Amino acid sequence: MALDDRKTEFTFVGTSPDRPDGMDKVTGRAKFGADATAPGMLFGAIVRSPHAHARIVKIDTSKADAMKGVKAVVTRADFATGLTGEFWNVLENVMAGDTALYDGHTVAAVAAGSAIDARDAAKLIEVEYEILPHVTDVDKAMAPDAPVIRAGTADSSVPEGMHPNVVRYHESGHGDVDAGFAEADLVIEDHFKTEATHQGYIEPHACLASLGADGKGELWCTTQGHWYAQKHCAALVGIETSQLRVTASEIGGGFGGKTTVFIEPVALALSRKANRPVKLVMNRSEVFRATGPTSSTSMDIKIGMKKDGTITAAQGIFRLQGGAFPGAPMEFSAMCAFAPYALENVKQMGYDVIANRPKQAAYRAPGSPMAAFAVESVLDELCNQLNLDPIDVRLKNASQKGTKASYGPRFDAIGLVECLEAAKAHPHYAAPLEAGQGRGISCGFWFNHGGETSVSLALSEDGTVQVSVGTPDIGGSRASMALMASEVLGVPYENIRVTIADTATLGYNDVSHGSRVTYASGLATIKAAEAAVKTLCQRAAAKWGIPEDAVKWEDGCAVPSGPNAGDFDPLPLASITANMGATGGPISGHFEATPEGAGVSFGVHIVDAIVDQETGKTSIPRYTVIQDAGKAIHPTYVEGQFQGGAAQGIGWALNEEYIYGEDGRLQNTIFLDYRIPVASDLPMIDTVIVEVPNPGHPFGVRGVGETGIVPPLAAIANAVSAAAGVRLRELPMSPPRILAALKDNG
Amino acid sequence: MALDDRKTEFTFVGTSPDRPDGMDKVTGRAKFGADATAPGMLFGAIVRSPHAHARIVKIDTSKADAMKGVKAVVTRADFATGLTGEFWNVLENVMAGDTALYDGHTVAAVAAGSAIDARDAAKLIEVEYEILPHVTDVDKAMAPDAPVIRAGTADSSVPEGMHPNVVRYHESGHGDVDAGFAEADLVIEDHFKTEATHQGYIEPHACLASLGADGKGELWCTTQGHWYAQKHCAALVGIETSQLRVTASEIGGGFGGKTTVFIEPVALALSRKANRPVKLVMNRSEVFRATGPTSSTSMDIKIGMKKDGTITAAQGIFRLQGGAFPGAPMEFSAMCAFAPYALENVKQMGYDVIANRPKQAAYRAPGSPMAAFAVESVLDELCNQLNLDPIDVRLKNASQKGTKASYGPRFDAIGLVECLEAAKAHPHYAAPLEAGQGRGISCGFWFNHGGETSVSLALSEDGTVQVSVGTPDIGGSRASMALMASEVLGVPYENIRVTIADTATLGYNDVSHGSRVTYASGLATIKAAEAAVKTLCQRAAAKWGIPEDAVKWEDGCAVPSGPNAGDFDPLPLASITANMGATGGPISGHFEATPEGAGVSFGVHIVDAIVDQETGKTSIPRYTVIQDAGKAIHPTYVEGQFQGGAAQGIGWALNEEYIYGEDGRLQNTIFLDYRIPVASDLPMIDTVIVEVPNPGHPFGVRGVGETGIVPPLAAIANAVSAAAGVRLRELPMSPPRILAALKDNG
Repeated sequence: MALDDRKTEFTFVGTSPDRPDGMDKVTGRAKFGADATAPGMLFGAIVRSPHAHARIVKIDTSKADAMKGVKAVVTRADFATGLTGEFWNVLENVMAGDTALYDGHTVAAVAAGSAIDARDAAKLIEVEYEILPHVTDVDKAMAPDAPVIRAGTADSSVPEGMHPNVVRYHESGHGDVDAGFAEADLVIEDHFKTEATHQGYIEPHACLASLGADGKGELWCTTQGHWYAQKHCAALVGIETSQLRVTASEIGGGFGGKTTVFIEPVALALSRKANRPVKLVMNRSEVFRATGPTSSTSMDIKIGMKKDGTITAAQGIFRLQGGAFPGAPMEFSAMCAFAPYALENVKQMGYDVIANRPKQAAYRAPGSPMAAFAVESVLDELCNQLNLDPIDVRLKNASQKGTKASYGPRFDAIGLVECLEAAKAHPHYAAPLEAGQGRGISCGFWFNHGGETSVSLALSEDGTVQVSVGTPDIGGSRASMALMASEVLGVPYENIRVTIADTATLGYNDVSHGSRVTYASGLATIKAAEAAVKTLCQRAAAKWGIPEDAVKWEDGCAVPSGPNAGDFDPLPLASITANMGATGGPISGHFEATPEGAGVSFGVHIVDAIVDQETGKTSIPRYTVIQDAGKAIHPTYVEGQFQGGAAQGIGWALNEEYIYGEDGRLQNTIFLDYRIPVASDLPMIDTVIVEVPNPGHPFGVRGVGETGIVPPLAAIANAVSAAAGVRLRELPMSPPRILAALKDNG
Repeated sequence: MALDDRKTEFTFVGTSPDRPDGMDKVTGRAKFGADATAPGMLFGAIVRSPHAHARIVKIDTSKADAMKGVKAVVTRADFATGLTGEFWNVLENVMAGDTALYDGHTVAAVAAGSAIDARDAAKLIEVEYEILPHVTDVDKAMAPDAPVIRAGTADSSVPEGMHPNVVRYHESGHGDVDAGFAEADLVIEDHFKTEATHQGYIEPHACLASLGADGKGELWCTTQGHWYAQKHCAALVGIETSQLRVTASEIGGGFGGKTTVFIEPVALALSRKANRPVKLVMNRSEVFRATGPTSSTSMDIKIGMKKDGTITAAQGIFRLQGGAFPGAPMEFSAMCAFAPYALENVKQMGYDVIANRPKQAAYRAPGSPMAAFAVESVLDELCNQLNLDPIDVRLKNASQKGTKASYGPRFDAIGLVECLEAAKAHPHYAAPLEAGQGRGISCGFWFNHGGETSVSLALSEDGTVQVSVGTPDIGGSRASMALMASEVLGVPYENIRVTIADTATLGYNDVSHGSRVTYASGLATIKAAEAAVKTLCQRAAAKWGIPEDAVKWEDGCAVPSGPNAGDFDPLPLASITANMGATGGPISGHFEATPEGAGVSFGVHIVDAIVDQETGKTSIPRYTVIQDAGKAIHPTYVEGQFQGGAAQGIGWALNEEYIYGEDGRLQNTIFLDYRIPVASDLPMIDTVIVEVPNPGHPFGVRGVGETGIVPPLAAIANAVSAAAGVRLRELPMSPPRILAALKDNG
């Protein structure tokens, strides 16, 4: 699409009306994962490994089978065999085979007439384990003496001589980094580590499943992607994809953590065995122990800089531990790490390392925040030591349209320079600091994603509109879809209902991830609405007896144009739909595609920190997010994404971490011990929406959901360094670590 | 569509696989109207008028309001105002305004925490009535002294001087009937009456409704048409159509009776007032008293015939009582009455008469069975008196392609002659009768209908198929849709799942009525599948690097053709779908239209009867249905429709009737007193499927759901006449009426 064709003047887009699902959510009418019921429903409970690594010698279900009220017990024997690739890995995670691979790994499950009976029955299932040596730390898992967790998992990308726990390897970059470092006036190399964190969604995983002996089933679940759930559940229980109808409930947060399946295939297997619907709901402890947190990391960064701030070379090594399965997003860490900068010489290497932990899942811009933490910390140190302004240095090196990105392609129109300039001009950056405060900044990058997308749209006789999308609404997307449909159709926002269709009633849709929904489902909504407009114009042309191309669509009306301009009064949409049945049939619009122009996104964060020298507690008195949204369809929800990313980043930077004991068991499995930020931990987070339109979207949209969590870790580390004079190279910067660093520093 | 283009060779179509929903229905997994639940759900109960006609002086809800557990009470004040036309009539029926118009008319409703509380609370609602004079018989309602039921209801079609209870008038025909009668050798004129009957569906009306103060709602209900429910409910509670999402449950029978709304708007109004979901379920007595039975009728038929069997003229007057609201299908009675015959001179008149009874609803071929009863009885009498074979006479006069129908248009290809010839050739017609047995035959006609239709179809990566239709499956249509999709795509029947989409996820669809589903949703499924095939061929062409039009679709594979024939191996559907995301996006197909070529349908029934001279009980030892299906997609379901129509017709002919007391109250409100046929009342009903393809459907389909109920009333009356020597001109031919006729006959 040429830039000139892109719409730049909007009537509805860019306003911020109330969300369509607002009343549902404040009155409790919205139905979340655990709210589904069915006649004759059973309740499931899961038996989990108490060991980090153990061979399953024997599972004796006889006592549970015999218990009154128990209708089904399932183990791995109740799932499909012969799976390969990702299906195999998901099955291995969903239900242990020969070996329990982490504390919390599912080994069996039971369904009974009540939740209490199910939990009691689960306790009657006797599992005999042979405990095996375990490892949970990423560096230790790569060490020569580490126990081998799953022999033969490594693919051909892994260099020879690596420990078998290194299962994938990535390398990319361009230029000659050694030559670049030689040109530098200052080279800094440092080592960084980050712990795994959890997305911390408020709603635990929950589902209701029904599967018959005929291989036909229904699944209701809280998910970011019900087609993903459909495909994987069908494969895992051995039925055809189309025979499983999956409905996405309202979702109480996901942030990437609900892009896969955990309990859903288990509930289906229980249902098939019991021939009854089965509900499964996790508790918080299960969520922490056995869903998908981020990877923990170990990183080495080396950057060379001239005295004028020019970066001469950059190199990064990113080791990501993603649990006992391949898939840690080390290539994303590597590819995002230096993306903000136009570099002559850059090299990045990634290692995917398995350990005795739960299979990692996506968490907002997976892999990028940790990389940014390391890279932007080193950049900050370079600026400090060379006495350069950190924004000026970043502006000097900033990627722009035409820059060859560190990960390969050339950037199209991007907004990093605009974000840095907005940061530099922002009152926050110039505001004087109080005593003891430090200020940090960081850039952040995320690719954004298109993905497979289907949208249908139907008009009602009264002129109102139904939009049917397949991407669960995890961030107010029903509002943005309605606004985009409004814009094309000229129908008020309030007259449009956006529904998340189930898998049986719409074409395939990728998961709500990759910041893709407003971009891709939005694009498809626009195209579907345009298809409906074409039909509306055809009906008007037929009514007026003029050619189709002599009718244009303006402000919700068909209008004669060209030689016929003024010949007829404008015909409002509702006048056409009132007779649509008799003038050719129902009017709908459809669009299916895998759009490719998702438009990368950059952001810049400014943060002030105060470190309490006695307790080690860090406070954040001021925080500003500046990010390129391309075009903000619903500005207050864009701001909400910016603020949400920053808030989660603050938690990650300062407090959140998975704490494993020597026994390999997770020690902090509830929100009292795993400390996510609460309102009193957070300042009002200021936002600046930069709009550099994405050439790949008709309205210029870029995804905004993920980039916002990339800069906080580094920005806060830089602010802490400025405030307390100590640089923390390990996350979280929790009070004990801060105190230790202060003590080391004297 | 030219006849030559129509497909005539089939692979899947014409086979009779198990229905996809079979396992659901025999195991109890299928969810019917009353099976829906929601968190916080309330239960509703309805207060109904015990009077046939009464002014509502006052409704005191204070005691109910004060009862513990009661969350909402609604009356007419809780519904929309200012409605007109059909919306107004439906509202008047759903909730009485100033006047209760029939025994059972809803006057208030209540929602409480339990069903028992709701029923108790309903008893606490005090309604003060002023009883008004009433009338329930169609002839009495037209008499000069009849009470005026709803002054001002009559439209401009009604001739001057008619009683105000006559609210609509129809007249049609051609030629000069008086001249025709003058040419006849024998003219017979007779008067006939039929009582109202109920569709007798096993599942009572049931729904679960949720409506918020934001004007957004959800409705789950047992219905033949959820878009109809959406539109009418939205209007009646005063919200926008698109803001109400309606899901059709599985349906336990409808037969036309679930083509409108009764309790659904009431449940929505209760839900809005209580701000909680509300379930409403009718009991059987409510179903009889307050849903939509057929019209009762009073008819005068006059037919003239030459000695050779040529009909010279025919005239009919059809007076239909359809309850207290306009809409009795008197024009269908009039238009269908003489449709089987090619007549030079024909005239038909219809009167829509209101009375103090529930608003009639459709019942299989509404209006046609009663008309056929009268017309075919007179024809039988003419044949008897002129000593002519009843099939020969019908063959002599039969409508054919090109005949100007009694109701106006010229017939396209039709199958009446083929049906009559099949009847004549059938062993049943030649079989000797035992002593006391009589044999009757009758023709029957129904228009069939197209209607607004939307279908979408999506392919899964594993090559299985999801078809999304909007017409509730009332007769096995999921099987026929899957067969038609199979035929186009070349995908096995078992790999296709057909889902009844809710109103939010598909374009508008008319009700499952008018025998339209296999025709119209089938046509749309074929077109949607063809659209998907086009995309599949495009993907193959792109892969092979050859033009799109050089790819054809054969046996589920893309195949290179023309100059490229043989250049590449056939590419199976599943190979294309496996990569569809990366080769252009999800593959779907869609179709929306109001197809016009529904293709009329004729049938001929042969029936043997024995009348017990002592008890008056009639038995049916043998029954054969011959009917034109155009093309039988799933032959055993076509046979099922033929048999079901005959079975219901046997009930209507022999036993079923609404019995009103002098007080205007319905006296037989349960299945013990309203006697539908049970298995022991029925013979094995033999069937012959005639196939004269419908030029308006790609596979030649004609609807088959309704015509089968048209001939039984007359065929049985003719058999009874032959068996017992008495002609019954009033239905049902129940034992008391038979005994009375025998007695009259001496």
